[in-house]
Amino acid sequence: MKAIVRRDRRLVTDDIAEPAPGPGQVLVKTLVCGICGSDLHALHHLEHMVETNLRAGAADTLDASADIVFGHEFSAEILDHGPETARTLKPGTRVVSVPMALGPGGVELVGYSNRYPGGFAERMLLQEAMLLPVPNGLSAEAAAMVEPMAVGEHAVGKANPGKNSVCLVVGCGPVGLAVIAALKARGLGPVIASDFSEARRHMAEVMGADIVVDPSASSPHAHWEAFDVPATLASFGAARLMGRSMRDAIVFECVGVPGLIQSLVEAVPPTARIVVVGVCMEDDRITPVLAINKQLSLDFVFAYSPEEFAATLQRVADGTIDVAPLISGVVGRSGVPAAFEALGKAGGPVKLMVNPALD
Amino acid sequence: MKAIVRRDRRLVTDDIAEPAPGPGQVLVKTLVCGICGSDLHALHHLEHMVETNLRAGAADTLDASADIVFGHEFSAEILDHGPETARTLKPGTRVVSVPMALGPGGVELVGYSNRYPGGFAERMLLQEAMLLPVPNGLSAEAAAMVEPMAVGEHAVGKANPGKNSVCLVVGCGPVGLAVIAALKARGLGPVIASDFSEARRHMAEVMGADIVVDPSASSPHAHWEAFDVPATLASFGAARLMGRSMRDAIVFECVGVPGLIQSLVEAVPPTARIVVVGVCMEDDRITPVLAINKQLSLDFVFAYSPEEFAATLQRVADGTIDVAPLISGVVGRSGVPAAFEALGKAGGPVKLMVNPALD
Repeated sequence: MKAIVRRDRRLVTDDIAEPAPGPGQVLVKTLVCGICGSDLHALHHLEHMVETNLRAGAADTLDASADIVFGHEFSAEILDHGPETARTLKPGTRVVSVPMALGPGGVELVGYSNRYPGGFAERMLLQEAMLLPVPNGLSAEAAAMVEPMAVGEHAVGKANPGKNSVCLVVGCGPVGLAVIAALKARGLGPVIASDFSEARRHMAEVMGADIVVDPSASSPHAHWEAFDVPATLASFGAARLMGRSMRDAIVFECVGVPGLIQSLVEAVPPTARIVVVGVCMEDDRITPVLAINKQLSLDFVFAYSPEEFAATLQRVADGTIDVAPLISGVVGRSGVPAAFEALGKAGGPVKLMVNPALD
Repeated sequence: MKAIVRRDRRLVTDDIAEPAPGPGQVLVKTLVCGICGSDLHALHHLEHMVETNLRAGAADTLDASADIVFGHEFSAEILDHGPETARTLKPGTRVVSVPMALGPGGVELVGYSNRYPGGFAERMLLQEAMLLPVPNGLSAEAAAMVEPMAVGEHAVGKANPGKNSVCLVVGCGPVGLAVIAALKARGLGPVIASDFSEARRHMAEVMGADIVVDPSASSPHAHWEAFDVPATLASFGAARLMGRSMRDAIVFECVGVPGLIQSLVEAVPPTARIVVVGVCMEDDRITPVLAINKQLSLDFVFAYSPEEFAATLQRVADGTIDVAPLISGVVGRSGVPAAFEALGKAGGPVKLMVNPALD
């Protein structure tokens, strides 16, 4: 079958072995698969990502020097069932799935595995137990947006904002936009969104942000006081002293560059919770005593649970979250290298997808 | 009145102006006042602490170049009431108090104020509204331990451990010991405690730690798996996959030196919550991607609420927390510089106190 293969830190189209479903597995045809920021990073730095995963205690299942087929934001159609499957969903059913499959060394990530090609291949193997049918009428492209949107659902779930929370989303790439969507899907607000790119700020508004800020023109932190969040330690102390209950600040860091966490530690209001969703791959510097004086929390979050994935599918399918504006286009196999380049540019397209059946 | 004054980064005994209670204030006689690690730091680095507080958004109320009388861990006896006071507690009543008083620029910390001398002076001014009577039979020294023990209550309250939590306390100085006491007061365990000093490990056992570890001999993180905490990302993934519910890890960082937060980010189990209670005054380096892969939380905590302070007084008074083993001795004014030196040595006395009425 045809696939886009990562080989020698380049993307090449090649014919790879046809996958055969093992016990509990299902063979699917990839309909479409989004390109994730982590794919852009992994193209050049997969070796570093693997090393980091091992340092974090992950199982040693991925050889970065061997061929990998990326793609974990997919929708697909069932072709065939392997042995020991329930076959509840018939061939032809459109499905999405948490991109996980079982290997001999434990869980492997579909799209970051030597064993399981991802959605940049014509066909994939998925675990039957993980499949969710796509409701009628939802396009293949919209269904493929469930995975990146679930990242926002997870980040918001971890922060668990309430009616009194004022939320700031720093960075309006796919992750930041998913966070905005998850906040608005819960009916929460105000949501302040900040991005240097005008196109991304526009997209944040489309996804429901109540206020958008260009941080090169004004600080997104200038808005706290207007929403009754005590913005400084002095105003926090005064509010407490007067027994005045005020609103709380939650900040979603959706950029992932060195220095950003510390800039938030400096700028956020006291007692703010900073949810770190953007993945900074480099070492970073913080000033713990500032975080202590302000009693900040840093929640580092990753991916989502199967329940959050399913809830996101529901919200995309019932129209609570409209993902259509985020889909910038679909390319065939030959368009993938250019799509990677376009996505690597600041303020470029939000989400490009691959249809691996097309040349 | 006599007081130990910080002047030119030295501690000197001097006569200072007799304080007169303003509206809502009470004049008290200091019975005894503990020396805090932050006093040791402030003796040499108060200027840096003030600068940090301002960066964190505190009100500009403290001039580090002027005289300061330290001491915020005190018990006292009411001498006289100022105007506009309810006088519910009569002169002669023994009291403790959150060390806060009102200045024209907002709240000031008694013991870190140019306006309000702390407990290293013979007499102090306290806010009547903040006073808590010391129950009969509790010694002045034990009552003075309420303040540092409340720091542990606050850290534990923030982490909110449950029956399924396994707690590790890194560093068994006064802060770490207060955390152990607060955990055991809630009936929680196992509590693992780690310190390089044999004397401190012994003290951790006295305060109720279930396991004490000398980190120069073995890693405190070697115990997670035995208590059914998934210790690596691989074991965490496997447990989730098998639907096996396991225990969660909470780690209290009670040391406050550069590098310690990162060493914990590297060593703690996935999804661990790290509560940062130790105050690292210098910049520090972390690797965010490790914290993301492991989905860690960092809660930076400081001080306590008035409610936590009151709850701690209750627990010390009713014997749930026995503070007697922590009290290493009481010195008069002339003994203070030597006491500061002794406390600055690793594994030295846990808590030395000052009776400012004694020479």
